Amino acid sequence: MEPIYEGKAKRLYTTDDPNVLRMEYKDSATAFNGEKKEDFENKGRFNKAITLIIYRMLEEKGVKTHLVQDVDDINLLVNKVSIMPLEVIVRNVAAGSFSKRMGVTEGTAFKKPIVEFSYKDDALGDPFINDDYAREMGAATEEEMAYIKQQVLTINEVLKEFFLKAKLRLIDFKVEFGRLSTDPSQIVLADEISPDTCRLWDVETGKKMDKDRFRRGLGGFMEAYAEVLERLSK
Amino acid sequence: MEPIYEGKAKRLYTTDDPNVLRMEYKDSATAFNGEKKEDFENKGRFNKAITLIIYRMLEEKGVKTHLVQDVDDINLLVNKVSIMPLEVIVRNVAAGSFSKRMGVTEGTAFKKPIVEFSYKDDALGDPFINDDYAREMGAATEEEMAYIKQQVLTINEVLKEFFLKAKLRLIDFKVEFGRLSTDPSQIVLADEISPDTCRLWDVETGKKMDKDRFRRGLGGFMEAYAEVLERLSK
Repeated sequence: MEPIYEGKAKRLYTTDDPNVLRMEYKDSATAFNGEKKEDFENKGRFNKAITLIIYRMLEEKGVKTHLVQDVDDINLLVNKVSIMPLEVIVRNVAAGSFSKRMGVTEGTAFKKPIVEFSYKDDALGDPFINDDYAREMGAATEEEMAYIKQQVLTINEVLKEFFLKAKLRLIDFKVEFGRLSTDPSQIVLADEISPDTCRLWDVETGKKMDKDRFRRGLGGFMEAYAEVLERLSK
Repeated sequence: MEPIYEGKAKRLYTTDDPNVLRMEYKDSATAFNGEKKEDFENKGRFNKAITLIIYRMLEEKGVKTHLVQDVDDINLLVNKVSIMPLEVIVRNVAAGSFSKRMGVTEGTAFKKPIVEFSYKDDALGDPFINDDYAREMGAATEEEMAYIKQQVLTINEVLKEFFLKAKLRLIDFKVEFGRLSTDPSQIVLADEISPDTCRLWDVETGKKMDKDRFRRGLGGFMEAYAEVLERLSK
């Protein structure tokens, strides 16, 4: 069976229900807009399991997501959505592109969370944009941008607390949203929430427990993901 | 007499009044963060005269600016301000960095104006930021950002109409704001408004009448500035 879509980390397949897709988590890791690429055994399994735990927890807290149900170790059933061309990033602590862009040392805590948007377009390099850009590019209306901001700030509070119980500090994370195929006016959280899309530092040692281990060649990449899964499963 | 500050296009001198400075408009043109640089006779004179006309007009419309009074062909007296580290850009039509960043053809009109902010820092290359970045960098509070946005949208409406009477289409412009030395809670429009800081296209022919003639080596650079001044003086 051929996927109807293949991204850097996941594949999508049709199911008997035209409004439901099967999402398969791949073992590949990519960074720097696909320039760095490598396969890691069990990566798909770890990210699927972590995403499932987090999505179930978020649903319990009233956050609407694309999740339908678990399938097996690397597959989830999800509602079909039209993904909005936005990467939504929430930052609690300076790191990564923020530190580089603004010349601020990694680890500097913000007074309040920062929300930022990138326009999803590989050819343009996913440029940083603001609300007015999103509106004029037809990515989202002003009302939708306000809704998404409010949603990610809620998700941030829930995630911070959830990770803290697992002795993990949520530095920043990236999410995407989609419009339900059954009702495009309904915007739900889509894509994954995993150490691929969150920066997580061990609360006590500050050790990086996320994709920065791959990006920066720090070693112990899958060991970190395994430990995140183990801590979240307790 | 030594200037207390020298920028790319202007020098500042003290006066007998500690809260008032003399602003001298230089003949130098720079582009690409100072990489391209050349002197043009009369440039300071044109930009000072154009800024004066525009600032007087804006003051009449109720916009608070740093302008105190005219001095001579290249000098203005201005209230001393602490310049906020923000470049505030308003766009009516796609051009320049917007077109490059977003892959949108120059000349595409927006449905509503776009307001964007850059963080003024030459070493960082004046990065594009959003409100949350400005707050965390200590550049402006959320309330100040909202005030500045509302001010530049008003200025945009006034300028669009003003330039249109001179058969010029206001594509985009950049301004800066400062806090008055006598009362830092008061934020006023500072810096210049000239063909160095506005994109102006002839309404009928679409001819560029601004610094893009220098940036892109189109020729007729000072002739365009002279014509803008002449049209605005009518």
